[in-house]
Amino acid sequence: MRRKFEKHMKHTDPERGRQIAENDRKHVFHSWSAQDKINPLPIAYAEGSTFYDYEGKGYLDFNSQMVNANLGHGHPKLIQAIKDQADRLATIAPGFAEETRTELARLIAEAAPGDLNYVFFTNGGADAVEHAVRMARIHTGRQKIMSAYRSYHGATNLAMTLTGEPRRWPTPAGDPGVVHFFGPYTYRSPFWSETPEQETERALAHLEEQIILEGAGTIAAILMEPVVGGNGVLIPPPGYLKGLKALCEKYGILYIADEVMIGFGRMGTMFAVEAFDVEPDLLTFAKGSNSGYVPLGGVIINEAIRDTFAQTSYPGGLTYSGHPLACAPGVATFEVFREDNLLDHINDLAERVIKPALEEMKEKHACVGDVRGMGMFWAIELVKDKETREPLVPFAPKPEENQPMVEYTAACKERGLWPHTHFNRTHIAPPLTITEEDLVRGLGIIDEALGEIDKYAN
Amino acid sequence: MRRKFEKHMKHTDPERGRQIAENDRKHVFHSWSAQDKINPLPIAYAEGSTFYDYEGKGYLDFNSQMVNANLGHGHPKLIQAIKDQADRLATIAPGFAEETRTELARLIAEAAPGDLNYVFFTNGGADAVEHAVRMARIHTGRQKIMSAYRSYHGATNLAMTLTGEPRRWPTPAGDPGVVHFFGPYTYRSPFWSETPEQETERALAHLEEQIILEGAGTIAAILMEPVVGGNGVLIPPPGYLKGLKALCEKYGILYIADEVMIGFGRMGTMFAVEAFDVEPDLLTFAKGSNSGYVPLGGVIINEAIRDTFAQTSYPGGLTYSGHPLACAPGVATFEVFREDNLLDHINDLAERVIKPALEEMKEKHACVGDVRGMGMFWAIELVKDKETREPLVPFAPKPEENQPMVEYTAACKERGLWPHTHFNRTHIAPPLTITEEDLVRGLGIIDEALGEIDKYAN
Repeated sequence: MRRKFEKHMKHTDPERGRQIAENDRKHVFHSWSAQDKINPLPIAYAEGSTFYDYEGKGYLDFNSQMVNANLGHGHPKLIQAIKDQADRLATIAPGFAEETRTELARLIAEAAPGDLNYVFFTNGGADAVEHAVRMARIHTGRQKIMSAYRSYHGATNLAMTLTGEPRRWPTPAGDPGVVHFFGPYTYRSPFWSETPEQETERALAHLEEQIILEGAGTIAAILMEPVVGGNGVLIPPPGYLKGLKALCEKYGILYIADEVMIGFGRMGTMFAVEAFDVEPDLLTFAKGSNSGYVPLGGVIINEAIRDTFAQTSYPGGLTYSGHPLACAPGVATFEVFREDNLLDHINDLAERVIKPALEEMKEKHACVGDVRGMGMFWAIELVKDKETREPLVPFAPKPEENQPMVEYTAACKERGLWPHTHFNRTHIAPPLTITEEDLVRGLGIIDEALGEIDKYAN
Repeated sequence: MRRKFEKHMKHTDPERGRQIAENDRKHVFHSWSAQDKINPLPIAYAEGSTFYDYEGKGYLDFNSQMVNANLGHGHPKLIQAIKDQADRLATIAPGFAEETRTELARLIAEAAPGDLNYVFFTNGGADAVEHAVRMARIHTGRQKIMSAYRSYHGATNLAMTLTGEPRRWPTPAGDPGVVHFFGPYTYRSPFWSETPEQETERALAHLEEQIILEGAGTIAAILMEPVVGGNGVLIPPPGYLKGLKALCEKYGILYIADEVMIGFGRMGTMFAVEAFDVEPDLLTFAKGSNSGYVPLGGVIINEAIRDTFAQTSYPGGLTYSGHPLACAPGVATFEVFREDNLLDHINDLAERVIKPALEEMKEKHACVGDVRGMGMFWAIELVKDKETREPLVPFAPKPEENQPMVEYTAACKERGLWPHTHFNRTHIAPPLTITEEDLVRGLGIIDEALGEIDKYAN
C-alpha cells in the first residue's frame, strides 16, 4: 500500500493540473460537449480501480472509464505486452501476417461461440458496426437493418443512424435502410406485459409483426446488444434472445450481436451471448478486448459469411486493421482471464456482494425503483415513486430537470467515486479486477449518495 | 551496421514464419481481400526504412506501409514515448483533461495554418472524415458534400460514399447528400486543356458550374485532398486550390482538406495546404501524425466552426478520442521534425535525388509516361505509348489485364523493395527519415524493375 501511495503522490502537482486544464480549453475539442460549458478534470495517473487527479485525489472508477478498462488501469501484464510489441514491431499493414494479430484472432475465435471463426479487426466499436453491417448486406443481398430503440452503436454516420437514443437526434439520418424496433424492457414494458415471460412473448410477437410489415425479404440483419448497455443494462427476459435468433433463421435474416460494451467478461461470461445460449452470425467487439489501452475493435465472422468473401473481395478495410500494438494487450487479456480465474472472480462478487447490496439499497431508498444486472454490470433505476415508477428525472432530461442526478454525482465524487449516470439511472461497471474491498467501499459510497437524493422521491 | 544486422537476424525463423502464415489463414479476415486468394507474408521485425520477413529477407518500405510510417519503423523516440505514457496513463476517457493529449493538440494547432486552433481526435482517417462532415453540415445547416472523383476518404459508410474510386463501387451509397465532381489532372485532363494554367482555369469553371447546378445554398462543404494521394499523387496545378477556396467563400461553402495521407511532412511541408497557401475550414489527419504506431486521427477545426459548438453540444464522440497512448508518439513526432530538421531533409532529397532520378527514368523507359510529386511522395505513371498516353494497364484492371504490374511488383520484391502500385502507377513514398543511401538504392531497384516491363510499351 505504501508503494502505491508513493507512486501516485509523485504525480500530485496542483499547479501543473491547473496549467493542463487551461491548455486543454485552448486546443482540445471534446466529444459530445458544448465546448464553453465544460471544465474537464485533469487526470495525472491511474492504477487498478482508481484514477488520480493532480491534487492527489483518487476516484474509484465505477464505470471503467467508458466501460472499457475491464482489467483496470495500468495492468502490468498488458503494459508489458505493449512495451514488448513496441520493441519488436509497433505496426505493420493489414496485408501482412503478424504473429500477435494472428494469435489474438485465434484466441477470440476459440472463445467465441459456434462457428464464429474469423476476426476482422477495426479501431473501435463504431467501425466494427459499420463493417458488420456491410458484410451482412452483401452476404444477404438485402439492404435494411433493424436496430433497437434504447441502443447505442457508435458515432460514425451509419452507426449513429443505427443508434436508438437521443445522441442520434442531431445527426441527419445517414442511411435510408435503417429501421428501429422496440426491444423488451421488463421494468417499463412497451408491450403492457406484467411478467418477464409475457414480456418475452409479446416482444417477439411485436418484432415478428414488424419484420412482416417491413418485408422480411428486405431485411439483411437485426443488430442488437444482447444486453443493452449504456441505455440501461437491460437484461433480456428468459428466451427473448433465443426467440429473436429463431425469427432471424425463419426469415433468412442475420443476427449481429453488438458486444462492444458487454463483451470480454463484463457480463460474467467471455461473450454475453453465451449467457443466453445464442449464436449470432456476426459479433462486434471493442473496449474490453484490450481494456482500451490501445484503440481496438472488430467483427467476429461465422463460416457462411466468411465464405461469401472467399473468392470475392470484401470491399472494406482500414490502415490499422489488426494493429499489432493493439493486439498485444488483447493477447495478454486472455492470459489474465485464465491465470486469475477472472470469470469466477466476477461472478462470485456479483452474487455475493453486488446483488445483495443493490437489493438492500432498493429496500432502503425511496428513490430506487429497480436494480438489475449480471456479472460486473448493473443498473440502479431511480424513480419519484416506487408505485407509479415515474422516473426521478425524465428521459433525455434538460439541465434544469436534472438536479437530482447532479446532486447524486457530486455526492459520489466528493466521497472519491466517479459514477456513471444516464437519464434516471446510475450504472455500476467497475473494472472486472476490482478487489472486494474496493467494491464494498464503492457500493457504500453509492448507498450514501442515494441517501442524499431520497428527498426527491415520495 | 553489424548491430542492426544481428537485431533482425534474431527474428529469422522460417519455420515460425510458416506457422504464422498458416494460423493467419485460419482466423484473420483481411481488408479488401478475397480471403481464399491471399497469402500474406509474415513480417518479423522492422527498423528504419526496412522490414524483415522470417527468412531474414529485408524489404525497403517504399510505401511506408500505407503511407503512414512517416518516421520509419521502430523510431526510438516514438517507441520511448509510448513506453513512458504506458507507464503513467495508457488511457483515460475523452471527458477528462490529459497532459499528452493537450500538448499534441497545442502542437498541431500551432503548426496548422490560419485559425485552425482546435483538435478533435479520432482513431483514424475514416472517422476523422465522418466527423468533419458532420461538423460542416451542422455549422452550415446544409446537407450536400461535394467530393472528387479519383479520391479516397476511408471505408466507413459515409467516408466510402465520399470516395471517388472503385473501392466505393461494391458499397451501396450510404448517404444521399454526396455529390462527386472532377478535379484537375494535368496529365490526363478531363477538361481538354493543354497547359497547367488552362487546367486550373477550366477545372474551376467546371466546379463553379456544378456548384450552381447543384444549388450553392444546399452545399455544406467541398471535401478534397490538397494533393490527391492514393489515386495518383495529383499535384493541383498552380492556383487551383486557391481558386477552390475562393469559390467556397463566394458561396458560403466550407473547404475540408483531407490530409490523412499527405499531412505531417509527406509533401515537404507540415501540412500540404501550406504548399499552396490555402487555409481550409476543417483539416483531417491520421497516419503521419504518429507514424501509425498507435491508431490516431483527427479533425483540426477553425474558430468559426468551434464557435458553433461553444454553447451547443457537438453530437459526436468516441471512447478513444484523444487517446493518451496514441498522442504520445504524436508529441514525439513534432520533436523529431524539429530536432532532425526533417522538412529540410525531405525537400533536399526530393530536389537533389528523387526528381532527377525520376526524370531520368522518364527519358530512359518506354513505359514511363509521367513522373510527378513533391516532398517524399511521387508517382510514376506507366503507359503503352508516350504519345497517346494509353495507360499500361487500364483503370481498375482485371487480374488478366494486370500482368505488367504483377511483373513490376515481383521484380521489385525480388530485389528487396516493397513497392506500391495502383492501376497503371507506382508510387514512391518511403519514410521521411530515409537515408540518402537507402533512397538511391531503392530508386535503382525501381529503375531496374521498370526495365523489365518496358517490353509492354511501344
